[in-house]
Amino acid sequence: MSATPEDPAIAELNDQIAALGLSISEAKKAAAPKEEWDPLLQQMLALKVQYKQLTGHDHGPSKKEAPKSESKGESNEEASEKNKEKRAKKAAEKAAKEEKKRKQREEREAREREKLEKLSAAATKDWSHVFGDAPMIQSSSKSEDGINKWTKIGDLKKELEGKKVVVRGHLHTSRGVGKGAFVLLRSSLYTVQCVAFESNDVPSAMIKYMTNVPVESIVDVCGILTIPEKAVEGATQSEVEIQVQSYHCVQKATAAMPFQMEDACRPDTVKETDVGAYDHEANQSEGGRVGQETRLDHRWIDLRTPANQSIFRIQSMVCTLFREYLLSQNFIEIHTPKILSGASEGGADVFTLDYFGKPACLSMSPQLHKQMAAACGGFERVFEIGPVFRAENSNTRRHLCEFTGLDLEMAIMEHYDEVLDVIGDLFVYMFDGLKTKCANELQRVKEQHGFEDLEYLRKTLKIDYATGCKLLREAGIAQDDYDDLSTENEKKLGDIVKEKYKTDFFIMDKYPLAVRPFYTMPDPNNPKLSNSYDIFIRGQEILSGAQRIHEPALLEERAKAWGIDVSTISSYLDAFRNGALPHGGGGIGMERVVMLYLGLPNIRKSSMFPRDPRRIAP
Amino acid sequence: MSATPEDPAIAELNDQIAALGLSISEAKKAAAPKEEWDPLLQQMLALKVQYKQLTGHDHGPSKKEAPKSESKGESNEEASEKNKEKRAKKAAEKAAKEEKKRKQREEREAREREKLEKLSAAATKDWSHVFGDAPMIQSSSKSEDGINKWTKIGDLKKELEGKKVVVRGHLHTSRGVGKGAFVLLRSSLYTVQCVAFESNDVPSAMIKYMTNVPVESIVDVCGILTIPEKAVEGATQSEVEIQVQSYHCVQKATAAMPFQMEDACRPDTVKETDVGAYDHEANQSEGGRVGQETRLDHRWIDLRTPANQSIFRIQSMVCTLFREYLLSQNFIEIHTPKILSGASEGGADVFTLDYFGKPACLSMSPQLHKQMAAACGGFERVFEIGPVFRAENSNTRRHLCEFTGLDLEMAIMEHYDEVLDVIGDLFVYMFDGLKTKCANELQRVKEQHGFEDLEYLRKTLKIDYATGCKLLREAGIAQDDYDDLSTENEKKLGDIVKEKYKTDFFIMDKYPLAVRPFYTMPDPNNPKLSNSYDIFIRGQEILSGAQRIHEPALLEERAKAWGIDVSTISSYLDAFRNGALPHGGGGIGMERVVMLYLGLPNIRKSSMFPRDPRRIAP
Repeated sequence: MSATPEDPAIAELNDQIAALGLSISEAKKAAAPKEEWDPLLQQMLALKVQYKQLTGHDHGPSKKEAPKSESKGESNEEASEKNKEKRAKKAAEKAAKEEKKRKQREEREAREREKLEKLSAAATKDWSHVFGDAPMIQSSSKSEDGINKWTKIGDLKKELEGKKVVVRGHLHTSRGVGKGAFVLLRSSLYTVQCVAFESNDVPSAMIKYMTNVPVESIVDVCGILTIPEKAVEGATQSEVEIQVQSYHCVQKATAAMPFQMEDACRPDTVKETDVGAYDHEANQSEGGRVGQETRLDHRWIDLRTPANQSIFRIQSMVCTLFREYLLSQNFIEIHTPKILSGASEGGADVFTLDYFGKPACLSMSPQLHKQMAAACGGFERVFEIGPVFRAENSNTRRHLCEFTGLDLEMAIMEHYDEVLDVIGDLFVYMFDGLKTKCANELQRVKEQHGFEDLEYLRKTLKIDYATGCKLLREAGIAQDDYDDLSTENEKKLGDIVKEKYKTDFFIMDKYPLAVRPFYTMPDPNNPKLSNSYDIFIRGQEILSGAQRIHEPALLEERAKAWGIDVSTISSYLDAFRNGALPHGGGGIGMERVVMLYLGLPNIRKSSMFPRDPRRIAP
Repeated sequence: MSATPEDPAIAELNDQIAALGLSISEAKKAAAPKEEWDPLLQQMLALKVQYKQLTGHDHGPSKKEAPKSESKGESNEEASEKNKEKRAKKAAEKAAKEEKKRKQREEREAREREKLEKLSAAATKDWSHVFGDAPMIQSSSKSEDGINKWTKIGDLKKELEGKKVVVRGHLHTSRGVGKGAFVLLRSSLYTVQCVAFESNDVPSAMIKYMTNVPVESIVDVCGILTIPEKAVEGATQSEVEIQVQSYHCVQKATAAMPFQMEDACRPDTVKETDVGAYDHEANQSEGGRVGQETRLDHRWIDLRTPANQSIFRIQSMVCTLFREYLLSQNFIEIHTPKILSGASEGGADVFTLDYFGKPACLSMSPQLHKQMAAACGGFERVFEIGPVFRAENSNTRRHLCEFTGLDLEMAIMEHYDEVLDVIGDLFVYMFDGLKTKCANELQRVKEQHGFEDLEYLRKTLKIDYATGCKLLREAGIAQDDYDDLSTENEKKLGDIVKEKYKTDFFIMDKYPLAVRPFYTMPDPNNPKLSNSYDIFIRGQEILSGAQRIHEPALLEERAKAWGIDVSTISSYLDAFRNGALPHGGGGIGMERVVMLYLGLPNIRKSSMFPRDPRRIAP
């Protein structure tokens, strides 16, 4: 169904195409970057497609409307007679047509005049309160409502229909369509669509401005909340949109984006393997995929993806739940020093520094100090959340050189099962809490990274090390009861346990004495075993702990058995000589808990600014 | 009022003194250390005093009872007649007396036989379940009730009268009195008196054991809770005591105490001055006073005093309240790296280290990363509790080389007063919370260190820097509006403000631009001022903060104005080039908050294991 060329819609389209053409050629003349005029070109192409649909033929200044059929062949004899009539008729038709055209032209000219007048009025009008770059926010004034003026994007709901709202966010995307602009604004996990169409209150320059503000700039939008006919695709607040009344850029992005946010938000296509070496080079960007290393190089941008916004909200909740539970169990929070004297603690894997002329190192765990506080200092139950440093040159997907330790240490009355009871219940509390308090965040992580919900039992499964080894052997995997478990065998055991007990989370107890630190309390019945345990999520270790030796004589004996020069640990031993409570505890790798709970393939995804042997920035 | 020598009480005393004499001479013969027999000697002296009170003369084997008045002078004439009668009477009396004595002797011998039989029975009986060194707690078994068997010393109340209770604690003091032992057991803030007297169920060896276990050993006491006639002095649980049924040492202190707990707990006599240099030497112990440095050398013991137990419980609560409030205001907790690349951040005052061959340093504040998270990374409101490192060679009472930073950073909509509103309310929340949740702990700190309760207003007082300077000048103290405030003037201003506004806590706003870091947002109206503030408790700074510059161009300009080589901060600048929210925040020194809230004279008292230029252990 073709419209006639005289249709005002066609005329309008012609005007728009001409205006766009002008803008583009001006932009090209001014040597503007392609990013600036390319969207205009896209708009023009869209308009031309629309033109063809309406008129049935391509648009183009060269294709003048030629009178149809006039030059088509007829015999001269027949023609001579008919010609007079036809000519008269044609002349009349022509006159009528011209009259019509004249009228249309006049109408068009009137419209254009009107438009010019409007534009002229617009040009002389001060639109700065309607759109444009806002002055830098320097705390020069406060609005009447103060911060109550703003609504959070996440709070935009149907119930606000018809209400005026003001929102601030990163400009996620913008596009112009005809005389309208469609903008997606993003804040934390949420996005909303804002739309504007040219009108008395919306000058065309504003539409142009809206489509030209660089993505990721900070924008303030004021408008009326409406409910669109169909849900807005690609916006989390899909049931609503904002009819823009004013649009201001609060802070303008001035550098090119190192990658597109749309790419950074794309769901994983390949699930990275989570065992084995981590290859920094392989994690540069490639094609549309934004590589892990590229993301980290520009972490301040990467953190804006809904998945990352969620991961670090979940991380915050893990710490909150950890503390909530332990405080309810009469633990207190402590802060122990990260700079320790000497370099005695861990040999080669320790970062060393100069401390006012004395050798010092960074703490590899708050072990000694948390024991001093809980067992010797009389605090009985303590925890700490703090950085832990490992100078280990491990380039894997699960090692960091600086991570956050969730440490706890407690006096025991008669058996270290008291510690395991606390830890088991602690994790159930954390897992339950995450499910209820971070439902939205979990969903957003799932959308990008896709994971299976963690399975766990309400009474945490505990198996002995020997049982674990037996399970492996039954599955045809070589594992001696007194040898250490390889990472690979840990994974395999995790699979076996999951299959057999339907849990991704379990405790393994009674490790061989030989594979644990010297301060581990030996098993009372089997001298080759110890009162120690690891805890696993999805077959990877997240906690290591034990009952500790509280008798200085035994501590000394065990240190000697390990070949440790007792003089180097004399201050550690001294702490137990003036009365010390029996005690036990454990250290949890916080980033590992987050990584494994969410089934992430790389611990760098659960550390906000990760440190590995190759990365020390940003 | 003297008792007759034949009184059974006297006989009993004689027996006791004889037995003690035997014990002492045996101990001396066995060359036992004085500590062992000295208490017995003290007991014997006490018994002898008792003897003198009862009989009216000193006790002693040499002083036989001489017949009284018999040899007193009478005239021979009168005497001859009376003598016969008297002699007959005397003979009868003597016979009666001897009969009486014989009976008494027989009774005494019967008692002694009985006692010997009991002792013999006791000697063959196994008393190990009643007293003695317990086997090392190695988790070899669990009792039926598990940990429910034990009652916390702090939970021992009148309501448990007549109930059997089991408690564990440090042996605070012990003393033997007669056939009894008085023991004070301590756990965290609380102490209870346990008493035992020799009886069928309490052998004398147990009394001896109880008075001989070294102080500070860990002891399990089982007994019946009773209510003493008058409150027990020196015990926090003064309304109750435990009649000991069994007494076991769970872990024995094996080293001499570097100072006595009683001395360590003594109320401060001299209030140390809180301004000026800290003298390590002067803080060694002297006389009965346990010096600050001696305490820190043996911090694991010093932490046991009720005041220290309270200080670190209050510290834990400060962190809990800080987080509680910020989480309720939609902040999230983050963890930023403490190892930073290069040594650019702070010049000389930074600890440097080698990071896999690259130069690195320890973070002097999470400034850049918290800005990256809040303003650039889209988290909008973040906080962090973590270590902060300063390689400053400052030996004062208020500087540490490693302390705990309570940091927050938040996006602002239009004015940094939004930050100050959050911070002001945060502190009121913390101060209120401490008062209600740590009432007991505050009392215990006060008992030792004595402080005035913090005065603060419900709407935090905010004065401009210029106003502060004017207040000083009005008090005759030289202070220019654009010069930095000395520590001394800060203190003086604190006094003036306290006098004038009745508050120990206030915000000072609008600092001169020249005395703040380059990233501080300049004031919009006066180019010599800035949008920055400090917060004071009792005239000492505990927080420093500001609106930060979020525009990279201005940031660069300000850096240049400070003479900073822009190439060294390029990554900092880059973070603001892809869209950054206007923002502000602050950093709080946690130990300072605790120190000043409690009016402590030295920041080392509010750091569990302090680090200063001279101390890196324990």
